[in-house]
Amino acid sequence: MEASALLRAPKQELLKQLPVDHQAFFKWFLALTEVHRPSFQLEGARKTCIEWAHKLGATVAEDEIGNILLSIPASAGLENVKPLCIQGHLDIVSVGKFDEQGQVFLKLEDGKLTSGISTIGADDGIAVAAMYALIETRDKYQHGPLEFLITLDEEVGLIGAGKLAGPPFLKSRALLNLDSEEWGTFYTSCAGGLSAYYELPIKKEKVEGTGLKLHLTNLMGGHTGLLIDSGRSNSVKWIDRILLEIQAQGIPFRLATIEGGDKHNAIPSECIATVVTSEPEKFEALAKKLHDEIVKESKAIEVKGPKLAIEKVDVPLCLCECCHNKVLDLLSSIYHGVWEMHPEIKGIVRTSQSMSITRTKDDVLYVQVYARSNEATRMYWLVNQNKSLARAVGCPIRIPEEEIQGPWPAALKARITEIAKESYHKLYNAYPEITAIHAGLECGCIQNRGYPDLECVSYGPTIHGAHSVEESVTVETACKCFNLTLEIIKAWAQE
Amino acid sequence: MEASALLRAPKQELLKQLPVDHQAFFKWFLALTEVHRPSFQLEGARKTCIEWAHKLGATVAEDEIGNILLSIPASAGLENVKPLCIQGHLDIVSVGKFDEQGQVFLKLEDGKLTSGISTIGADDGIAVAAMYALIETRDKYQHGPLEFLITLDEEVGLIGAGKLAGPPFLKSRALLNLDSEEWGTFYTSCAGGLSAYYELPIKKEKVEGTGLKLHLTNLMGGHTGLLIDSGRSNSVKWIDRILLEIQAQGIPFRLATIEGGDKHNAIPSECIATVVTSEPEKFEALAKKLHDEIVKESKAIEVKGPKLAIEKVDVPLCLCECCHNKVLDLLSSIYHGVWEMHPEIKGIVRTSQSMSITRTKDDVLYVQVYARSNEATRMYWLVNQNKSLARAVGCPIRIPEEEIQGPWPAALKARITEIAKESYHKLYNAYPEITAIHAGLECGCIQNRGYPDLECVSYGPTIHGAHSVEESVTVETACKCFNLTLEIIKAWAQE
Repeated sequence: MEASALLRAPKQELLKQLPVDHQAFFKWFLALTEVHRPSFQLEGARKTCIEWAHKLGATVAEDEIGNILLSIPASAGLENVKPLCIQGHLDIVSVGKFDEQGQVFLKLEDGKLTSGISTIGADDGIAVAAMYALIETRDKYQHGPLEFLITLDEEVGLIGAGKLAGPPFLKSRALLNLDSEEWGTFYTSCAGGLSAYYELPIKKEKVEGTGLKLHLTNLMGGHTGLLIDSGRSNSVKWIDRILLEIQAQGIPFRLATIEGGDKHNAIPSECIATVVTSEPEKFEALAKKLHDEIVKESKAIEVKGPKLAIEKVDVPLCLCECCHNKVLDLLSSIYHGVWEMHPEIKGIVRTSQSMSITRTKDDVLYVQVYARSNEATRMYWLVNQNKSLARAVGCPIRIPEEEIQGPWPAALKARITEIAKESYHKLYNAYPEITAIHAGLECGCIQNRGYPDLECVSYGPTIHGAHSVEESVTVETACKCFNLTLEIIKAWAQE
Repeated sequence: MEASALLRAPKQELLKQLPVDHQAFFKWFLALTEVHRPSFQLEGARKTCIEWAHKLGATVAEDEIGNILLSIPASAGLENVKPLCIQGHLDIVSVGKFDEQGQVFLKLEDGKLTSGISTIGADDGIAVAAMYALIETRDKYQHGPLEFLITLDEEVGLIGAGKLAGPPFLKSRALLNLDSEEWGTFYTSCAGGLSAYYELPIKKEKVEGTGLKLHLTNLMGGHTGLLIDSGRSNSVKWIDRILLEIQAQGIPFRLATIEGGDKHNAIPSECIATVVTSEPEKFEALAKKLHDEIVKESKAIEVKGPKLAIEKVDVPLCLCECCHNKVLDLLSSIYHGVWEMHPEIKGIVRTSQSMSITRTKDDVLYVQVYARSNEATRMYWLVNQNKSLARAVGCPIRIPEEEIQGPWPAALKARITEIAKESYHKLYNAYPEITAIHAGLECGCIQNRGYPDLECVSYGPTIHGAHSVEESVTVETACKCFNLTLEIIKAWAQE
């Protein structure tokens, strides 16, 4: 398709400034920046993508949730090559100012495409642009049967990939996910995850004394997968530690409420607890002393300077003595942290869990744990581990099957990884770093939708500031990423 | 003292082959190799040391357990310098063949002193030799008041240092521990430790079915402090994981016994469990399948090839259903692994615990946990953490006060560390690595015997194969270690 049919005038001008030998690729990338496509608002973008595909003569399929699968037949003589899929997501995190129709303002600056005022959707427009360029130029290179999978709503919980239609929707034997953000790094594994909901019935009663509210703030928090090995503190564990030691030192008090954390995938960074005590001065003095000790222990990591404010409040209704102990002990006993590092990929966590959300609400203590593993056989272990603790403590627990997301286990020797590595080496005379990520990627979802033997590898250009108005992609690595994809397709066809 | 008064003829000859400018130091080192001094058999060696000290004119003090403290006054004009202590242990791990009186056969080979047929006690003869050389040559260098602490039975649990007499026995403000084994690495922190004994009452009953014995062997095991972050598996957790999943899959069985681990400081590498089941074939098939999965998960680490043997046995008396669940759940819920990495010293564990010894014995399930931290304020947390779990689960627990060993917390900015670092730099034009060890060192014991403000640093020559007949010490680093000690003493006197 002509650039003039896809781009407004300023973007046609911008295209001319981009590398001559990658015009097809950048044309489609710029075209995508003309299409408004925030998560959950993809109907228009989906239609546009399908229309483009029809114009280019690709076969179009859709599944129930709306993922789009384009396909093109093999070059003559390569019909028996196993199909290969290129994959990326359509939606973008939409932050900042866009043009009236939702188009991205875009400029070239220091070798980078950026907006400066909004996200540009290089995450993951680069993938989708590569697909259309590969479809459009399909007569110019040798390839087996190719599929192009455009998934929906990745940025809001991998929704499209997580609901992908099962076999025989996707035919491919291997898949290239172009959604990574550090050129030169290949991902070959991602984590699965599950939620465990501890729901402990609690009884309340009146207790004489002074009501105190403890409010802990200014912890670092952060992602429960990517930062679980950072040593960042869990605010609820922090308060629980203080309360248990106050109790151990014999200062009487009774817990009324405790609350911290608000997302399954964020380490809680605040905690509010209320207690009633007959010795408020001693309680407060010891709480502050213990708090200061923990601040000192963690000073190299908790650099925001954690604050503990303690103030008098109306005397709240308290937990009964038995529930008070159960709650403090359960919050201490539920594990938060790294269960194990990856034995084969240095510096990567393989299995972890986060005590993410804690609430005393009416007559229940509610704790949501989010647990992850990059290893399929560790997933049942995570289930049993949490069920065991709950059973031992006498706390009801729910681990909904439908919320269990399988991992993409490391297949360091997978053929597609080998081919990708060798193609990279052929083009750039160096080897990429092969690693894993302890968080969800679409590859994991896709494999777990009935494609366990689908070999995947994930890579991408260098994107800085994704999900913010600083988002930029370097032109050089975008070109390299496209070249690599083409090279892998050609090498795969020779298998 | 003359070499001829200290050494038999062959060692007098050996001394002549050693560096001319370090004759005093090596004379004392060789003299120590003439003294039989295995742990728990130190009476003769103690007498010899005291006799030597008297001959050299040092002041001798002893504490109740028999640690020896030698002291010499300051050089003229340096009387007001704060006292400094040089410290090491007298005992050696006695392995291999010794001469009739227990003397070490010793030879010089490729720049190393070694025996080839026994330990040589460079660990920690180097320290004690340095002390006597420093006492003997005290008029040849400028120094403040010096103390020399020779401790007993380090190799069998830091016993001497752990029972050191409190103040005012030791007068020093800083202490140099010469018991490390990698030249160029300074230690500035060690772990404290505590034992937690879980003792769960269990009831037994007769159960119909087939008796099976599961015997897991060939795990790597290893030190619970130094190797707790190695990913090595705990054999009891391994079996417990299999049993919990068999139960989750609905194959009925009842636990009779479980046993694994035999030292507080060793990761258990074997486990034996007996069960009774009405479906022995299904049980065995699933157990083996699960075992194979865990083997695969851990293949990069458990390189000995873990074996699970399952055989029929006479039907044993089983745990009642409630106890069966409690035991499986407790073994799953007691934490084994790294609690946290050190936030300020890269690659070092700060807090950990090991589920070290497990036994069902008569009417009790007995589990010994050994927990460590390099941070003083984490010690009470470890106590509360284990007590909380035990209370929540309804399991009696003992954490004996007298078995709690305090840590040597990292004092990266301590004056003695600075001086040691600068002295090293002055002599060798490079900086040492400053790190910590997640295990016990005598420095920790000594500080915790009533000397909390005693600044310590630990270093030593390069010793290979300590505790084995391969033990050797390089002559070059032994000389450097002595020179450094002398330089630190001189620099300290200028403070």
